[in-house]
Parts: sequence; structure tokens; C-alpha cells
Amino acid sequence: MEVYLDNSATTKAMPEVVDIIRKVMLEDYGNPSSMHIKGVDAENYIRMTGEIIAATLKCSPKNILYTSGGTESDNLALIGVAEAMVRRGKHIITTQIEHPAVLETCEHLSKIGYEITYLPVNEQGIVNLDIFRKSLRPDTILVSVMHTNNEIGAVQPVEEIGKIIREVNPDTFFHVDAVQGYGKCRINPKSCGIDLMSVSAHKLHGPKGVGFLYMSDRVRLKPIIFGGGQQKGMRSGTENVPGIAGMGKAIEILNKTLDEDIAAERELKSYAVNKLKDMEGIKINGYNDGESAPHIISISIEDVRAEVMLHALEDKGIYVSSGSACASNKPAISATLKAIDVDKKLLDSTIRISMSPFTTKQEIDYTIESMEELIPKLRKYVRK
Amino acid sequence: MEVYLDNSATTKAMPEVVDIIRKVMLEDYGNPSSMHIKGVDAENYIRMTGEIIAATLKCSPKNILYTSGGTESDNLALIGVAEAMVRRGKHIITTQIEHPAVLETCEHLSKIGYEITYLPVNEQGIVNLDIFRKSLRPDTILVSVMHTNNEIGAVQPVEEIGKIIREVNPDTFFHVDAVQGYGKCRINPKSCGIDLMSVSAHKLHGPKGVGFLYMSDRVRLKPIIFGGGQQKGMRSGTENVPGIAGMGKAIEILNKTLDEDIAAERELKSYAVNKLKDMEGIKINGYNDGESAPHIISISIEDVRAEVMLHALEDKGIYVSSGSACASNKPAISATLKAIDVDKKLLDSTIRISMSPFTTKQEIDYTIESMEELIPKLRKYVRK
Repeated sequence: MEVYLDNSATTKAMPEVVDIIRKVMLEDYGNPSSMHIKGVDAENYIRMTGEIIAATLKCSPKNILYTSGGTESDNLALIGVAEAMVRRGKHIITTQIEHPAVLETCEHLSKIGYEITYLPVNEQGIVNLDIFRKSLRPDTILVSVMHTNNEIGAVQPVEEIGKIIREVNPDTFFHVDAVQGYGKCRINPKSCGIDLMSVSAHKLHGPKGVGFLYMSDRVRLKPIIFGGGQQKGMRSGTENVPGIAGMGKAIEILNKTLDEDIAAERELKSYAVNKLKDMEGIKINGYNDGESAPHIISISIEDVRAEVMLHALEDKGIYVSSGSACASNKPAISATLKAIDVDKKLLDSTIRISMSPFTTKQEIDYTIESMEELIPKLRKYVRK
Repeated sequence: MEVYLDNSATTKAMPEVVDIIRKVMLEDYGNPSSMHIKGVDAENYIRMTGEIIAATLKCSPKNILYTSGGTESDNLALIGVAEAMVRRGKHIITTQIEHPAVLETCEHLSKIGYEITYLPVNEQGIVNLDIFRKSLRPDTILVSVMHTNNEIGAVQPVEEIGKIIREVNPDTFFHVDAVQGYGKCRINPKSCGIDLMSVSAHKLHGPKGVGFLYMSDRVRLKPIIFGGGQQKGMRSGTENVPGIAGMGKAIEILNKTLDEDIAAERELKSYAVNKLKDMEGIKINGYNDGESAPHIISISIEDVRAEVMLHALEDKGIYVSSGSACASNKPAISATLKAIDVDKKLLDSTIRISMSPFTTKQEIDYTIESMEELIPKLRKYVRK
């Protein structure tokens, strides 16, 4: 039995996604900038995806900018706003538990003169709104808070954050890294006061190498990639038409059954968490109620190193991740786990299970049975 | 009959390319950063493509960095070197006929304090080497010259340019935009003294949204996209594994018959040029001998607007471009055509035919016959 439970790292593409990519590559392969019908046909795929995405966000297709993925979207949002708004201020607020695509970009910005405030989080990985309110300043040009944490599934109170921004400094732009949140939750950028939102297709059973950045009408940012002036000059380069078409197809299909899928994943998560928490020496990190992500479970296992657990499960055909697998595969201690004060000796003993709408109860049962069998065996070999 | 002669804008993907993309998306869909076998399998595709490309360039796979395409490769080369070498100097040399991905990036760099020298070209679009030699200075950190011009097919003397750099200022890095040259010519970066070289897959019957940047061992540059530290921190973001695998497949197939294909395209180009130049009021721009690109023909047609010609040919199922179609589809006067001193009244009357290894003599015959039939008719309607 093969059980893929690493869907927060990446997902298997849907067959319908692959079909449309195939069609675009072999039949409608024109350059959207070409003036002939092959170009017009290509542009139509981009337009259709824009309409699909806009419907899910209750915005206009013109608010959607295509990028090469979540990392580029985050970089464009942060660097683009920083450069466009530098005359107004150089202060940016983010959190300690962002994805490296945000944290490393902030690190880069701090080296070139921007001041970054990294908000702490509580033991469930949630930002303290009072601290946030106090950290907003007249020169704060951007707040960047992720929707759903990729390691523990903590969901931030983005609506409240947006509200506080509007109260304290309405000129501040609000960026949300929704790479783990979009498609697992209905997000309305307008009602949350979100100005920029990053999404990646390959986390949604779409293709790798493509994503988008939602931008509200009021947002101003400078491009980070220059060239032929595609996408109104905001992101030059021939558009990845098959990728964009594939992303549109994935989002269209996901949204048809989104509410049912979320409910089913949440139920499966509760079921798994209830079984897991009864096991000896196991701690589930973060919230696991209705407010958390429906698909992510972070599990610390006393006296079993994550890497050992991962490979033991792999031998049984079960694929999970140790810490965050979105980053490069060099082992490093997770900033998120440290920020939520996970016991030092458990930092290196934490695995992540991440489900998809296609995960079954049978797969979860098999995984838990395997863990029940493996953990006592693996503990025998631990060096004390 | 459908005749696609806009291969310099983009190409139709090879079926084998689509097949491997399909396989990766449905079977080997892991995140290369994942520690389990799904991640290892994904990483293998990246490794294989690296080996395929390295063999064509006589370099090591570690000299290859994957990007989202030619535009990103150009941006990374220019901005990355500019930022890494700023203490050594702020002078960059390029040409007047570069692709917007280079010209607009230079424009951006000039706004943030770099000094750009734009070399003129002769009527065939070739850089004058004496002027180039004189423009090299002790503070010149980068020279960026395209291999093959996208509009008229002029091929620059990159080997001589590399030699002059080594003679005058060997610390200067040499970037070559080879988006139109790689796959149409054998290029050996080491023997040409090339430090950086940009390539795009979708010009080579590979997928859109992926490309690479060759980097010599000595080159130093700073990343322009920050995050999870993939590709040794030089380009963060989950690698576009299906795209990279598809690019590798396209390059592998193209290289099997590259010399024969180049010879065949060159013969077809000569055949077409000979027929075209006999037509009344037609001028072929740039060189058309063995030193020019084998696949690009730039044709100025007196008293027929390019857009009108393009749509008339389109009605016959023939797809060409007006000026450059790599840029956005807003009509603008081509910098290349101006730089080679095309007669003012012909600037707006120039179309580009760009062939592929799959273009047939029958297709070229049909195209020329159609032009012979259409041009006199279209001239009747011209406003004098």
C-alpha cells in the first residue's frame, strides 16, 4: 500500500490538469503575445484561469498576476512593495513562523536598510493581536502574515489583523502567504483587508512552476523581473500558458467540492489526532480544532528521531515529512517549532502528516497502525 | 494547410516532452526537497536534465541553474552580477539590439546607479569589435551580448568578444543571451569565455515556464529570489520538476540530429531568401549566409503594413510575426530594426518568418506562393 501524506510539500497532479496541459502544449501552443490566432488562443487560457481564480476570491481577473510559484509571489509582494513604498517608510512587520520565502526575503530587505519586526506566536503558533497592534507604526509599509503555517497548520486571525491595520494605519499594505491556506479554506481578500496574497499551484494538485499573486486595486508595487512587458509590465516573460491553464483546472475542480472536502479532511484529522494522542510519548503540536488547517498534523514522538521515523514509514510505503519539506533538504531546526516552544528534545523528533482531499480513512488507519508497530521498536535503539 | 512559422516566439512541444511531463506529474510528483523516495525520484529528473545540458555545453551539471525561463535567466545574470560586483564597479556594456529582458533590466539598473553602455551595430546587426574594445573599462563588471538576435537572426561574434574581454579586462564577466541561439548552433561557453548564458525551453520544443542559466565556476552573483535555499540558495522555490524533465528531453532529442537539422534549416532559409529577394519591393534584413541564424528571416515589404500582412497570411493558415513577438503585443517600433537603419517607411512593414527543424519545403513554398499572391493585392489598398 502506498500512502502519500506529504501533501503540504507537494501534491500529485489531477489527471484533468495533466490533460489540459497536454492539450495546450500540443495544440494551443502559441505565445500569448503573438498577434495571430495561436496567440489569441493562448491568451484565452490565461483569461479563463483568471476568471476561475477571481470567482473563488470574489475579485476581478485583473487582480491576478501569474508567477513561477509561491516563492516568487512572496518575493514580488515583499520586495515589490518595499521598493514602491520606500519614501513612505522602511518598516515591515512579519512573524517568526513564516515560510523561508518570506523570512529570507525579509532578511534580504533588512540587509538593504529595511527594518523588520518579527512577531512572536503563542504555543499554538498564533500571533498575539495586542503585540501586533502595538508594533504598527506610521512608517510601517507592509504587514506579511501567513494564512496557514506549513509545519503545524496554525491558522492566523487574518481578518482581525486586517481590521487592526485599517484602524491603526490604513496606508499599510497587508500581504498573506496563503500557499497552505488557499484551497483548504474560503478566503475573501476584500473582507479581510488583504492587499496581496500568494498562492502556489503544486500544493493544489496543479502543476509545479506556477502560482499567482492576488493584488488589490489600491496596491502599488515595483516588478522584480524586467523584460517584454507582459502582465502590464508587472511580470515580464512569456506566460507559462500550460501551467496557468493547469492551475485553473485544478482550482476549478477543487472548488466544486471544497466545503465537503474540508469537512471530510477535518473529520479525518480529528479521527487521526484522537488515535495518535492516546499513544505513549506522543505530542500533537498546535491547535487541532476547527480553527486549524484541516490537512496538517504535527507529531512529536519522544525518543524517536524524525528522520528515522520517516524512513521506517517509508519502508511501509508511507510518505511523511520531517519538519518542513518545502525548504531545501538540508536538516535544520524548524523556526516554527522553536517559536511555539516545542521541548528541545522533541525538536528533532517531529514529523508532519499532510493530507489531501484524496486521503482515505483506510490510509490513515494503515499509517497509525504502522506507527503503533514501529515506535516501540525504534525507541529500543535510541541512544540515551 | 497550417504553417507555423513563428518558432522564435514559441514552439510546439515535442510529444516525447509532453509524455515525460505527464509521467512526472502523475507518478514521480514528489518535492525534490523531500527526504523520502518520492523526493529522491524527483531529484533524479533534475540530475538527468543537468547531465543532458552539461553534455551539450561541455561543462559540469553544477554549472546549470534552473529558472522560470529566459527572462528570469537574463534578470538573474544582470542583476545578480551587478549586486555581487558593485564594489568593483558599476559599468555594464550591452548592445542596442538586445531582447527587452536585457534592455529593460539594464534600464532598471541604470535607475539604481549603474552606468550602461549600449553598443551600436552595423546594418547587418553586428557589433563593431573596435568600438567594443574601447568601451571596456577597469570598472566594467559585465558585458551582455546576445548570441542570436530574435528579430533579424544576426549572430554576434561571441568568441571574439570573449577574447577581447580576456585581453582588456579579464575580471569582467561575460553574459550571453542564447535564447535564440542555443539549439540552433553548437556553443561552447568555455572556449568562448562565456561566464553566464541564458536559455529558454519553450523556444526548443520544450515547455513554457522553464529555462536555465549557465554559470562558469568563477562567476559570482547574488540571488534575486529568496526562500527555501533550493539550488544552493541561488534560486529558491520548489523546482519545476516536470518542466525541467521536459526541457531535458527536448534538448536530448534536438541534439541527436542538431548538425543535420541546422544544415537543413539553413538550406531551407537560402531557398526562401532566394525566392523572396526576387519579389518586387522586398528587402531581406541582416545577413543570410552561413554566419546568420539558420531559422530567422526578416522581411520588409514596401507599402504593406506588417499587421495587415500578418493577418492576410493568417487567413491562409500561415503564422508569422510582425517585428518581435517575444515582447508584449503592444505595437512598438523595434529597437533592432532602428539600430540596423532600416528605412523609416519599412519599420512598420517588416515581418519575421522563424522556422523549426520540423518546417518543410512544402510549407515554405506555400508561404511564398501566398505572399506572391497577397502582396500585390494588399498594395492596392495602401494609403499613399
